[in-house]
This record gives sequence, C-alpha cells and structure tokens, in this order.
Amino acid sequence: MAQQRRVQLSTQRPTSTVCVLGTELSLDVCGSAPKDAVTFHVQGTPGVKVYVVHDTQSIKMPSTVSRWPLAAGAEVLLSMDALSKDVGDEKVGFPISGRPVGCRTPLPAEVSLDADTTRSGTVSRTLLDKATWTWGPDGHGAILLVNCDRDDPTAKMLDNSDTAIRSYDDLKDMSQMVLRTRGPRTIFTGHRLILHIDYSDADKVGVFYGSNSAALEEYKHVLGGSKLAYTIKHSQHQEESIFYVEGLAFPDVDFSGLVAFHVTLLESSEKGLLEAPIFMDTVVFRMAPWIMTPNTAAPLEVFVCRWVLESQVPAHCVPDEVEFGYVQAPHKTFPVVFDSPRDRGLKDFPVKSILGPDFGYVARQAPEGSSSLDSFGNLEVSPPLTVQGKEYPLGRILIGSSFPRFGGRRMAKAVKDFLIAQKVQAPVELFSDWLAVGHVDEFLSFVPAPDRKGFRLLLASPSACYQLLKEKQEEGFGEAAMFHGRGRWKTGLSGLIFPFFLQNSCINWNRDILKRSLGLSEPDIIDIPQLFRGDTAHGAEAFFPDMVNMLVLGRHLGIPKPFGPQVGGQCCLEERVRALLEPLGLTCTFIDDYFSYHVLSGDVHCGTNVRRKPFAFKWWHMVP
Amino acid sequence: MAQQRRVQLSTQRPTSTVCVLGTELSLDVCGSAPKDAVTFHVQGTPGVKVYVVHDTQSIKMPSTVSRWPLAAGAEVLLSMDALSKDVGDEKVGFPISGRPVGCRTPLPAEVSLDADTTRSGTVSRTLLDKATWTWGPDGHGAILLVNCDRDDPTAKMLDNSDTAIRSYDDLKDMSQMVLRTRGPRTIFTGHRLILHIDYSDADKVGVFYGSNSAALEEYKHVLGGSKLAYTIKHSQHQEESIFYVEGLAFPDVDFSGLVAFHVTLLESSEKGLLEAPIFMDTVVFRMAPWIMTPNTAAPLEVFVCRWVLESQVPAHCVPDEVEFGYVQAPHKTFPVVFDSPRDRGLKDFPVKSILGPDFGYVARQAPEGSSSLDSFGNLEVSPPLTVQGKEYPLGRILIGSSFPRFGGRRMAKAVKDFLIAQKVQAPVELFSDWLAVGHVDEFLSFVPAPDRKGFRLLLASPSACYQLLKEKQEEGFGEAAMFHGRGRWKTGLSGLIFPFFLQNSCINWNRDILKRSLGLSEPDIIDIPQLFRGDTAHGAEAFFPDMVNMLVLGRHLGIPKPFGPQVGGQCCLEERVRALLEPLGLTCTFIDDYFSYHVLSGDVHCGTNVRRKPFAFKWWHMVP
Repeated sequence: MAQQRRVQLSTQRPTSTVCVLGTELSLDVCGSAPKDAVTFHVQGTPGVKVYVVHDTQSIKMPSTVSRWPLAAGAEVLLSMDALSKDVGDEKVGFPISGRPVGCRTPLPAEVSLDADTTRSGTVSRTLLDKATWTWGPDGHGAILLVNCDRDDPTAKMLDNSDTAIRSYDDLKDMSQMVLRTRGPRTIFTGHRLILHIDYSDADKVGVFYGSNSAALEEYKHVLGGSKLAYTIKHSQHQEESIFYVEGLAFPDVDFSGLVAFHVTLLESSEKGLLEAPIFMDTVVFRMAPWIMTPNTAAPLEVFVCRWVLESQVPAHCVPDEVEFGYVQAPHKTFPVVFDSPRDRGLKDFPVKSILGPDFGYVARQAPEGSSSLDSFGNLEVSPPLTVQGKEYPLGRILIGSSFPRFGGRRMAKAVKDFLIAQKVQAPVELFSDWLAVGHVDEFLSFVPAPDRKGFRLLLASPSACYQLLKEKQEEGFGEAAMFHGRGRWKTGLSGLIFPFFLQNSCINWNRDILKRSLGLSEPDIIDIPQLFRGDTAHGAEAFFPDMVNMLVLGRHLGIPKPFGPQVGGQCCLEERVRALLEPLGLTCTFIDDYFSYHVLSGDVHCGTNVRRKPFAFKWWHMVP
Repeated sequence: MAQQRRVQLSTQRPTSTVCVLGTELSLDVCGSAPKDAVTFHVQGTPGVKVYVVHDTQSIKMPSTVSRWPLAAGAEVLLSMDALSKDVGDEKVGFPISGRPVGCRTPLPAEVSLDADTTRSGTVSRTLLDKATWTWGPDGHGAILLVNCDRDDPTAKMLDNSDTAIRSYDDLKDMSQMVLRTRGPRTIFTGHRLILHIDYSDADKVGVFYGSNSAALEEYKHVLGGSKLAYTIKHSQHQEESIFYVEGLAFPDVDFSGLVAFHVTLLESSEKGLLEAPIFMDTVVFRMAPWIMTPNTAAPLEVFVCRWVLESQVPAHCVPDEVEFGYVQAPHKTFPVVFDSPRDRGLKDFPVKSILGPDFGYVARQAPEGSSSLDSFGNLEVSPPLTVQGKEYPLGRILIGSSFPRFGGRRMAKAVKDFLIAQKVQAPVELFSDWLAVGHVDEFLSFVPAPDRKGFRLLLASPSACYQLLKEKQEEGFGEAAMFHGRGRWKTGLSGLIFPFFLQNSCINWNRDILKRSLGLSEPDIIDIPQLFRGDTAHGAEAFFPDMVNMLVLGRHLGIPKPFGPQVGGQCCLEERVRALLEPLGLTCTFIDDYFSYHVLSGDVHCGTNVRRKPFAFKWWHMVP
C-alpha cells in the first residue's frame, strides 16, 4: 500500500506541493468544493497518473466519464513515476461543477533511504518492503554487525566504543545506508530533510557520514547516543549520500535486534506555522547474532592454556572462560570471542591476546555473582539438526543448569538471556549441577560421522563402563591395575564395579532431554565408558580422566588418557573407545592430562579452545 | 513424543523402577547383554505395553518374531496405561540368548500437574501439550491474572504485595494448579516429588497451598520470590493437591508473559549417591494482558474531575493520568486502572478512591522523567479492526509521539514498552508533539456507527473549518461574532480564515498513518471543523473548545461547546457537527467547558474518564 498524503485544495490560488515518487497524493475534492457544487472533472498532463475514487473503486483517468458526483468519500489520487524535466511541467486541473476551482502542479521529488535489503553485499534499490525484516531463504532486510573488533591495533578499546573512524578497515565492518535525493532544487530549499532514529534504538547503533572524497578524520558521527536526528545538508541533495552504520549491542532480553532508520521530508515552517512531515522512508536492519560453531566444523586455530605446554604452574585456565563464535553479514564475517562473567574484564586475556583487527569481543556480566556453571565448558553447540520437522541449520546450544534446589547453581541470567536472544541456535537446558564442577562437557561431546545425521553424540556412560569391567573381570582380569604410574586407587578392576553404578541416572535424564530436543535416536548416540564418583554433598566428578572431555579437530580426536586397567598389555578403556570411534573414520590420540588438568577437575576440553570455520549456511536463511 | 527414560538392565538382580503413566521406559538391551549374546527375547504381562525398536521401527509385542538380534541401537520400550492393583503385578522378562539375564517389574505411578489449559474456567485433565501455550480459537494453555486488586478493604497494599491470603475472594482471583499423584505407597517413600519454577520466573508469580479443609491462615506461600522449589509432603501423595497461583507482574519488555511450573519426581539418594530426576511434568501459564476499551464499548461508570462539578478551583486533573482497562482469565475478569508515570504513587487518587475488591491497579515509572505526552489523553484505542487481512479484534492502541527533534517529547519508554508487551492491541505511534499539550485526543476520536466498520474516526480538520467559515462569509456572515460571552477574539468570522489554514499538514500526516495502520478509507473518516493556533516555539492548541475532545457514552456524545460564529441565531460549528454526526444515530450535547477546561488547555475528554464493558471477545482467541 503506497504511502499517501492528504492535500487540501484551495479555491483561491493554485498551490504547488511535492509529490515524492512512489507515493500518492489524496486530494480532498469534497472539502474543497463550493457549497453548491455537485460534480467535478479532473484532467492531468501525461506525466501524472490520476485516479478517481468513486464508490470505493479507483478509476484511472482519462476515462469515458467526464463528470464525477461530489459524493462523500470522493477522492482524487495522484502519483508520478518519473522526475519531470522542469518544475511545473506536469499539471492537474479540477474544474468543479464547471468552474475552475483549483489547479495543482505537483513537484516530483525522489527521496529514498536504501540498504542492502536483498542481502547481496551491496546496496541496491529494490521494491522489497524496506520497513520489515523477514527470515528465510526468501526473506529480505538489511543486516548490521556489532563493530566489536579493534581494527586499529594502537587503540585501547573496541571500534564501537567511540564516535571516531580510525581506519578504512573500520568502515568496512559497517553497513552502508544510502540516501538518494533528486528533484527540482526549489523543492529542497522549501523543505527540510532529516535522518533520524527512534529513541529506543539510539544506544544500539552509530551512524557516520563523510562525503565521497572525505578523509578519515572528516567522517562525522551523525546519529546514535544522544543524537536522534541529523538534518541533511543542502550540499547533500541531488546526490547519493552514503552513511556508514555500526552496531553497538547484540540482541538481548530487552533488544529484539531490529533497528529502524527513517528519512523524513518536512515542509518548512512558513508564516510562523509548524513544520510538518510530508514523506517518510524507513529502512530496518537486524543486528547479526553471535553464532557458535560445533565440533563438526573445521578447526582454524587451537588455543591451549600456555601452562599446559610450558610448565606445571596451576595458573588460571583462561580458555574455559571464553567461547569462540562469529558474526556475519553479507558484506563481512569475523570471529567474536564471548567472555563469560567469570573473571571478565577488558584488561584480561581475551582482549590482550585475541582482540584485534577483524576479531571481536563480547562479554556479559553477572551482577548476582557467577558460579562454576558460567564457565564455558558448560556451553556447547550441537551440529545442524532437524527435530520433528523443525530445522536448526546452525545446531542448538546446550547449557547446563541445576534443579532449583536450595543452593543450586545456574548459569548467570545475563548469559542465558544473551544466548536465547541470539535466536538462531535455540538453547537447550540440561541438568549439570549433579557434577561438582557442573559442566555439560563433562558428560557429552559431538564427533563427526560419515553416515546418519553427520555426527554422533558421545555420552559418558557408567553402565557401559560397568559392563566392560564386568566382562574383563569374568575373563579373569579382576586384578588388573588402573592408574598406571598415576595411582591413587590401589585395588584392581573388580573394586571399581559397584559404587559407581547408579550414577547413570543423571546422565540418563540428560539423554532423554537430548534425544527429544535434538531429534536423536539411540543409534545416534555412542556410550563412552566412564565412571564418576561423588556424593550428595559435593557432587560427582570423573573418577579417571574424562574421555568425552575431548578435543575434536576434524577427524582427529584428542582424548584424555584414562589410565584404565591394563589387559593384555593394553588399556581396555582406550581399546573400547577406539573400537567405538575408529569405525567412523576417526583417529583417537590419548593425551596424558592427568596432572596438568585431571587432578584440577578438568580434562583436555576444559584446557583448550578452538576457533572454527563459520557455517557455510547463512543465518538469515533460517526461520527461528 | 512421550517422555522417555533410559534404564540400564542388571544381569545381577531384577531391580524395580517407576514407570510414570504416559511415559516410556527405554531399556538398554545391548548394554546389558553378556559379551557373547547375539539375540534377545522379550515378554510382558498384559498390563505392560512392550515395543521392540529394530531397524528404526517400533514393533508391538507380542509378535510372531520370538528372537531379536542384539544389533546396535536395539531398544525395548515399555509403557503402562493404568495403575495395577498391587505392586509387582506387572512384569517384563528378558531372556538374552536364551539366558534369563534380567527381569524388571515396573512400578506404575501417576504424577500429573494440571491447570485450566482448555480455558474452560476449571481444571481438567487433557491430552493437550501443557508445556506450550498457543493463541487463537483452537489454542490451548492456562491463564494467570496479576492479582493487583485489594480484596481486603482494610489492607494497605495490593493483594499480591505480600505472601498471605487475606480472604477467600483473594483465592478466587488466582488460577488453580492441581497436582495428582497415585501409585503404590512404596514408590513415593523411595522418591521425592518437588514442585518448582525457573529462577527467571520466580519474581513473576506466587503459589499458595492449603489442604482442602484448610482455614485461610493455614494457606502457605510455597513458591515465588526466593522460593524456587517446594517438596511435596507425603501426606499430599495419593490425592489431588490444589495450588493457587497469583501473578505479580504484567508482561513487559523483559517478560514474555509465559511462566512455567514443573513437578519433578526424584529418585531418592541411596548409598550416598546423587538424587536424580526420573520424571518431569510441566504446565505453562500466560499472564493476562492489560486491555483497553474503545469509545464504542458500553460505558459502565464515568469519572469526572470533582472540581468541574463542584467548584472552579483549577486543581490537578487526575483522570487524565489514569486509564481504565481490564484483565481477563476464563475464571475471572476485573477492571484495572493504569496509572501514568505523571504524578504517580500508591498514595494518590487511583488507589485511594478506585482500588478495592476486584478493582486492580498497575503503574509504570519513568526514571528518565515524564512529559505531557505521558498523560493518558495521549493514549487511546481504536474499535476492533481488520487491516489488510490481519485482525485486531480488540482494536489497536494509539499513542502520540514526537519527531526526534532536539528537545522533542515522547511517551516514557516504560509506558510504551508496557503497552507493546501486552501484545493484543498492537500500538500505533502518531505524531502529536506538534501540539502544545501533545495528546492524540486533541485531534482524533472514535464514535459508534450503524454501518461500515461499526464506527467512524473523527479528525479535527482546519480545512473543513476554513471551508465552512468561507461559505458563511460568502453568505454574508463575515462579521458574525465568536466566543459569545467567552470573548478573547474580538474580530468577526472573516478574521479567522487565513492564519490557521496550513495547520492541516500535521493532522494530514496522522490521517495517512491512521488509514494505513487501521485499514480505513476516506468514508470511514469524518472531518470535524476545528481551528488550531500556534507557532514553532510553543506548538499548537485548539483555538476554540476542541470538539473531537469529546466524551462518548454509547450513542450520546458530550462535545465541548465551540462558541462559534452565530449565524441565524445558531452556532454554525455546532450546526455542522450535528449535520455530520446525527445521521449516524448519535445525539450531540454541547457542554460548556470553556472556563473549567478549555482555558487550561484541555477539554471534556481530558477531564473525564470512562470505565467501559470488557470486550465479549476473549483475548486468547486472537493471534497477535
């Protein structure tokens, strides 16, 4: 439905008004007619499209009817398709009851605010509805990136933390917004054009403007923060003005991610009267969400706690408190590290060593205090899935939580809200508080597979371990020793079997949630033998290095070395895990992390972090 | 998809486990089989439904196949439809490769958390998915009311401001939630049942429990605030326990309105091992939104500023700062007054004189400071509409805003966010900041009509007034005096015509927005002659009493008396308005509010407030 503007006619003098291309003027024929008038006639020059609305129908002029009754609701609609060469070229006349009571000369103007609504990577004019934003392969609507990297290595803060442009690379992270204005110069001198944003969006974006030939330092911050409106300069009329838009905030519990920009043409005040809007164009952007990558995505870079490699100093293990992801727009993609509320702060590891050109940073705070469940061993993402017909082409996030028992721990509300608000990887909440540390990566992992859904879910399984040990016991290896050279458990294999058996229940509960929320069936799951010990007071922890707490790099798995019972010169746990995983084309390397991680209640996965290749699938092609 | 629970089999001894009716047990056949086993067999007594999952198909037992291969992914699913009379009545046997390796005896139990998910007004058990909430005539899901009235007149605060039940009327505002538990007593002694809510919902609801025969003071606050979980007492098993749920908060920018309650059956800790969940039932409620009523709804009660009736003291006009609406659930409906951030506070008018039994109160604050646009003359609602196929059966809210010009006023973010979050009357933002006071009720109103959409939109129209005055001038009444006895304008009719003419533009702009967002066409709009005067610095105000600022009570209109030019002994403005409105069956009474309101920049509508009949249409039947 075209934007329409009501125009009163004057019986005194023909007044001129602006007709913005693509809009309609609705002429108030009845209100303008002399008291005794009963009919009207209308005619226009060829550049003006004229319709008479009569009896709720729109009839295109010229028609065979020459006189129209001045009935209630009679209207004349005007529109123009192209700019006429000279002011006053096109005319419309309105003899009412035979008398020439009004003669209007619409001044055609072109005012258009455009962005990359087709998601092609460049701004082009389209007929798409720019004021709406839709998901899916046939969706439309422009995309913004949170400009949370630091393109200038000498800068102390993120690019979007100030109102200056420091490098051309910085501009490249921003989305372009193009204002096109054309028309007779007389129009723009009699009017004012403003670019503006809603108050509630002002803390979400920054807009910069510099003329085509501007040097970096001439780029001016024109909208955002306390700047709600920017008056377009006369020098900017009759041209295309390119604005650069940066995002300041990720979607969150109180921010849908949508931001609207408007350009409004105001009729200038005249004779002390008020300035009034006569045309508005709106373009809507969506802030790109922060996206996690699953184990099945190709690794690009592995981060390992330095102390693991160089020394035995039990320093704080940083990688567990960040998670790598990325943001993507049609024009640009870059990785963004998400810093957990635990031990956060720009001064710490992530910013110092990771943040840089095209490598962004985002953090959330937990004013209520953070817990172990806020470490990002408690934040995983599944490979792409379909669950009962519903597609999750970027997988689903898995977070661990507690039962709301007294003193139960949970992930900080700010982190959970943030993850839900990204919309594209709908989080699933698991029960992890039964573990002393309380992370989902203590009982699950995903590995690539050539068949079925392209992956397997690995679940730590006390019962599979029990079954294996029982088998070995029956084969006569009941005295086989564990923890070779790492001993704290002095009895043989048989001593392990009973106390741990019932610890299955909590993992079984998660198994059910995972099957339902990820659409898995039993053949998609592999039970990895694992024992946990613990009690109600302290929670459970892996009794030997936790094999599902593995590092997955393509088809290569770095698995914590379990130091299980030696049977025939081989660790029977390693042997079983190989037997389970190697048929999928995976290579198992068992890594001794006993002293470096395991005794500190973590294993390989907790001490490493992987930056992976973004999905080939574009997030805007999904329907959340 | 039924809730499923993985159960490991023991080759040592037949263990018993609970099978909650409506759920499935997934038996881990492969993980339990001895190393050399290749097949298994399964049989159950008639009360147990048994399925074998083989090659991704579920085959119901008994079948013609007597031996199943122990292939990867082989599973046995069990479920039970009814409680068996005695513990151990029903059995399932599992000879694996001919050897009896396990024999399980499921203990059937019934655990169910129910609410009025069918929206019938009472709680009944249904097969509907209780964990989801859907809109529309075929939707399902229970409804909560914000218990914001004050059933005990001696209480100082709202009913939901404490954790006590003060009257049986208070209980009637709450929604019932019924927990049903049945099964062998042995089950419940070996387990723990907890009722719990998510941390993020804990400040949105309060839950009370008292046994069927409990006196009021025995009702206990069991969930909400810091109480996240409540352990069901053994005395509550084997019966229906009724919980009473009250809402504490309306939907808002950070609260979708949905609240989930869970009941979880935990396997009690045994041998120092962890308590593990084995069954969870969830029921979701939606908080009823605050709903406004349009002029076309039947009036129930009219509130007038006392000083209008009794004195000329220009006291603060309270009704303009509250708006009447209502909340509705299948079991209860009551009016709720919404208090604007202007001059708010429980100590003031709304609570003292309105709040009471079944009359609720809600307010929003504006930490950023409130403006004239926060008065509720700037908050209106349209009658029910359909806009391009989209239905708004409760109408759309209309609020006035500014252009984001420097110093522009806007409605407080908290109020706007609140109105949007109610979802059922999707707000439309108009441009009202051109007016000195800045309220939408200064230029629009709705009146009932027997035809078309059931109403007309009345718009203040300077051009219609110009046209009328011009006509009268041409008829020779150019010297007709205005403001008879109320004079501040000493010239005759002719003096009025020109200076005001162009003030049409701002109303025209709103006319376009209204036509598009309410789906109106010209014949749905009536132009009411009205002049505004003003300038860029101060904004516009009605030059004579603002006739659209009227009071609509059914077909009776109380219209500000305009004191227009006397033509033939009659006010030509009144005459014109009658001519426009009386054909719709409306009665026009012109009220002299010149000194009581008009000179204080308000008119009849600003000084009155009407509590109207709730919509017959139930809000949950719409699809926002």
